[in-house]
Amino acid sequence: MAASDPTGGRPVDPSRGALRPLGLAEARITAGFWADRQRVISEGSLDHARAWMDKVGWTANFTIGGATGPAEHRGREFADSEVYKLIEAMSWETGRTPDPARKREIDELVALVGGAQESDGYLNTAYGRPGQAPRWSDLQWGHELYCAGHLLQAAVAHTRVHGPGPLLDIARGVADHVCETFGETGSTGVCGHPEIEPALVELYRVTGERKYLDQAKLFVGRRGHQTLPAHQFGWSYFSDDIPVRDATVLRGHAVRALYLACGVVDVAVETGDDALLGAVREQFDRTLARRTYLTGGMGSRHMDEAFSDDFVLPSDRAYSESCAAVAAVMLSWRLLLATGEVRYADVIERILYNVVATAIEDDGRAFFYAHTLHQRTPTRALPDDEEQLGFGGGPRAPWFEVSCCLPNVSRLLASLGTYLAAGDDEGLRIMQYADATVDTRLADGRRVALEVATAYPADGDVTIRITATDGGEWPLTLRVPEWAHGATVTVDGVTEQAESTITVRRAFAVGDEVHLHLPVAPRFTTPDPRIDAVRGCVAVERGPVVYCAESPEREPIGDLDLLRVDQGRAPADAGDGVDVWGGLATAADNAWPYDHPAGDDPPLGLIRLLPYHRWARRGPATMRVWLPTVQSPRRRSTDG
Amino acid sequence: MAASDPTGGRPVDPSRGALRPLGLAEARITAGFWADRQRVISEGSLDHARAWMDKVGWTANFTIGGATGPAEHRGREFADSEVYKLIEAMSWETGRTPDPARKREIDELVALVGGAQESDGYLNTAYGRPGQAPRWSDLQWGHELYCAGHLLQAAVAHTRVHGPGPLLDIARGVADHVCETFGETGSTGVCGHPEIEPALVELYRVTGERKYLDQAKLFVGRRGHQTLPAHQFGWSYFSDDIPVRDATVLRGHAVRALYLACGVVDVAVETGDDALLGAVREQFDRTLARRTYLTGGMGSRHMDEAFSDDFVLPSDRAYSESCAAVAAVMLSWRLLLATGEVRYADVIERILYNVVATAIEDDGRAFFYAHTLHQRTPTRALPDDEEQLGFGGGPRAPWFEVSCCLPNVSRLLASLGTYLAAGDDEGLRIMQYADATVDTRLADGRRVALEVATAYPADGDVTIRITATDGGEWPLTLRVPEWAHGATVTVDGVTEQAESTITVRRAFAVGDEVHLHLPVAPRFTTPDPRIDAVRGCVAVERGPVVYCAESPEREPIGDLDLLRVDQGRAPADAGDGVDVWGGLATAADNAWPYDHPAGDDPPLGLIRLLPYHRWARRGPATMRVWLPTVQSPRRRSTDG
Repeated sequence: MAASDPTGGRPVDPSRGALRPLGLAEARITAGFWADRQRVISEGSLDHARAWMDKVGWTANFTIGGATGPAEHRGREFADSEVYKLIEAMSWETGRTPDPARKREIDELVALVGGAQESDGYLNTAYGRPGQAPRWSDLQWGHELYCAGHLLQAAVAHTRVHGPGPLLDIARGVADHVCETFGETGSTGVCGHPEIEPALVELYRVTGERKYLDQAKLFVGRRGHQTLPAHQFGWSYFSDDIPVRDATVLRGHAVRALYLACGVVDVAVETGDDALLGAVREQFDRTLARRTYLTGGMGSRHMDEAFSDDFVLPSDRAYSESCAAVAAVMLSWRLLLATGEVRYADVIERILYNVVATAIEDDGRAFFYAHTLHQRTPTRALPDDEEQLGFGGGPRAPWFEVSCCLPNVSRLLASLGTYLAAGDDEGLRIMQYADATVDTRLADGRRVALEVATAYPADGDVTIRITATDGGEWPLTLRVPEWAHGATVTVDGVTEQAESTITVRRAFAVGDEVHLHLPVAPRFTTPDPRIDAVRGCVAVERGPVVYCAESPEREPIGDLDLLRVDQGRAPADAGDGVDVWGGLATAADNAWPYDHPAGDDPPLGLIRLLPYHRWARRGPATMRVWLPTVQSPRRRSTDG
Repeated sequence: MAASDPTGGRPVDPSRGALRPLGLAEARITAGFWADRQRVISEGSLDHARAWMDKVGWTANFTIGGATGPAEHRGREFADSEVYKLIEAMSWETGRTPDPARKREIDELVALVGGAQESDGYLNTAYGRPGQAPRWSDLQWGHELYCAGHLLQAAVAHTRVHGPGPLLDIARGVADHVCETFGETGSTGVCGHPEIEPALVELYRVTGERKYLDQAKLFVGRRGHQTLPAHQFGWSYFSDDIPVRDATVLRGHAVRALYLACGVVDVAVETGDDALLGAVREQFDRTLARRTYLTGGMGSRHMDEAFSDDFVLPSDRAYSESCAAVAAVMLSWRLLLATGEVRYADVIERILYNVVATAIEDDGRAFFYAHTLHQRTPTRALPDDEEQLGFGGGPRAPWFEVSCCLPNVSRLLASLGTYLAAGDDEGLRIMQYADATVDTRLADGRRVALEVATAYPADGDVTIRITATDGGEWPLTLRVPEWAHGATVTVDGVTEQAESTITVRRAFAVGDEVHLHLPVAPRFTTPDPRIDAVRGCVAVERGPVVYCAESPEREPIGDLDLLRVDQGRAPADAGDGVDVWGGLATAADNAWPYDHPAGDDPPLGLIRLLPYHRWARRGPATMRVWLPTVQSPRRRSTDG
């Protein structure tokens, strides 16, 4: 194909599919919940991440061996990729909000990166120099193709926002070198960490260079044949256990599996391979049904940052890496565009409000790597200037030895506006609700524009006002979230029930309003009985937001391990929280914990819950999402 | 003190305490459950382990650099210790059952080991040679003191069975070198893996050499001051986070924590430091109450083979390493001897029947490293000749890259007879029940002997017949397990209720019989409500044995994730199993697994359970210990 409009400002830009994505300039968040989270990134996280990358030497790595550069590579073998993700985030951010100073910063970073590129196109600061391991000597753990992938994605973002430039040239050099090294007649290896696959397809979409798509297809086909060396974690860790077409569920390292799935969708869409698309849909659908937390978080094993077996979803050992959330949004968005199925937009909303919104501190300068759903021992205050070595059990940390998550969440939030809406064959679909403006062209070229006004998710009323249209008929489709039983749409005083999606088809006039009402009253949610970790518990959700009980040290509720709630009394709105009836059970101390006598039901009172995304913002605290219910008295039975 | 009788054949030999241990020759298992498990070791595991250690090069490591030796060290940095544990196991075994061929094998192994000792006493095959890291250059991960500790333990065992010899000389050389290197004026470091601490005290007990005890005391005092380098796992992994006297619970790597605690008890006992003994008791008691599986297994995190927070005891991610079970028996035995408190014998029994008995295949040639309590995906057949890299999810494996567990369980089983009974101030206490003979002297020097006859644990009747006594009065004390409500003791036709312990004090005559009746009818056990992982479940126990539901592929029950049992109908004996009423619930496939509608109760029928220690002996299978109960219908409640 010819290259798509390279400057469309779209995070992903497939050439076919049920829906057409909009660009940054076409869909803009103007105020409210997500505007606040975007400001946290633009005013805090980008500078914070840059400062840390300078401090820990990841930017200076690009000058290794130069006159003023360091003698040795610092950081982990994938440190380059963090710089690339930061460039990508800054690129989307400057597309959202022009900022000449930030643009100059990007240019300087691009020049820095370009200075490390070899004459044959190869670019990685950890390999190939004197004293370093040779290029491609460790495909399993070396992350060279992974880093190359993130470089390509940064170049794609920068090009879609600012047009072709030096970063695109650098990326093409890297991609050409990859195609030469790993092409039909080259090495038959795959990278231990997928990422090059979607990146090559996206670069193909920007440049029209077919060999990049072919190379991505090659990599997808090679995966799953156990060509990587055996390892304690098993081939599943690398998604190298089963060929992509034969697998039935995502498994192994969550981010690896999700990035690979993104690349598989991209290859399937661009090559028209519906069987391949069907395979990855089946895998993801089963993953959503059996290996996903209530928050949309993925990955329940700390050891290998991995999916576990079906229904192994322990709250207190939830890994649910921020990067897995970003990757799951990327995958869901691709599947939404390819299929038009609204449930993928539901998934995106769930992940956004309950993992992405939870990840970053309000000043943008600290973040969660993993997202537990049950903090049993109080989080502890962390110093501002210390890199953390471990990923769990703490509060948001300023930096980790592996700090992929902050730039990853940043690149998603900076481009979040584009996830609000999409075009379809005839009209426009609104997928996420926020104060926003949309100004785009329909498939037939007619310009339409509208404003969205809402206090969502605090409130479930959404007003969409048409601000530009040509007077002809077109359909406006609204997503009704799966939880919104009893939703209604009102147009011209006529109210209709709405479920899944509702389409208003008419000759809109400027000033016309469509009112969507989503009932966001708090509700109890019960889990599948196969999830052992939360049997006998309920969760509280309100609209798209998962709630939790938090016991901060300065206003403690008590030992949350003993919390019990009465499922018979409905949860109720209470200011910015939700109240449930509950209390703390009694339990014996330091007794053998089995053959336990039935305890008395605790005296009940109101327990105030808060949105999960607001937890750990009030100092050291314990927390839990799933709330054990008051049990009927246990019966004891023995034979004898 | 003067050295204790060096040839007493006791696995641990404290100079003071509430109870006096017996030696291998004094307490012998003659038939039954444990005799069978001992035979598995003597006829299978010892040769199997030796063959694998030869195959993977661990024995040949001791000839590195020699004329016919290998050029490079093979295996992990602690491979020496496995050879030492095997020598220890063989030593106990030859004490239990004289075997000249095995004795020659030990002598050859000792000669092999001795050949690698340096002139200054240092002995480790992985350090200090050309091309190897320098001695003591990596205390955190190098395991040099750990290996030295296991060498000392092997020498202690060999000496207690066969008297002083070359292995004791080698060990003294190593210990002297350790004392010189790490003494008051030497290095102030500690080993990343405790083990040297109890080993030095035991060597002191054998030799009377006070400096070994002093050195152990030094090591114990140095632990917990965060002198090891920072690591992702935290200082707690090494028990180096909190000084031994200040800690309140065991934490971090389970085997590390338990070995250290053994050494702490040994130091406390030999130095008369009751405060130190109290500290470790408090830690272990809290560990038993909050961090121990129903089986007695310890360690619930795969990532760092570690204890988790209180009450984090997921069945499907149970780590419960075989070595942790051995270490917990060692610690419980030390505390039982020190305090006389019968509950530590209860702990030993629980661990023996439910972890130790589970660990080894019936031919002795495969073993579990970790002990899951819930196998969700079927175990798979493993080839006989492949070393496994990972530790979970499989059946018993012939060998692991890290194969500490087989020799560790072997050394415990070979010496198991000595755990049956102990002497007290006046008489004799029977702690574990098996077909056995005891022939020993009371504290006052009088000889007593008895025979124990029982089909325990299949049956709860135990007959103890006096076979030697001088006609004078002495007390015979029997342990009544904590689960044995309604136990009775009958002597001369008079029956008494018995709880915790019961003492029969009389002038026994040869031929007198004491009958103990322990009710072993199957019972439901309910967990502490703070253990989220098993809320709403029951377990089935019968006597000391934990039962499980197993679904082997060749006789499947069905999807055990859906199993529900009726807690209102008592479990019942059924041949070699136990029957409960239960069935498989229905569940939606591939639906979002939260906001789950109440399912119908399944139709119930009899489900046959088997002893947990018998699982995974019928080919590929799924399995679960904790059984969800049939729930009353869920209520749904929302506001709005």
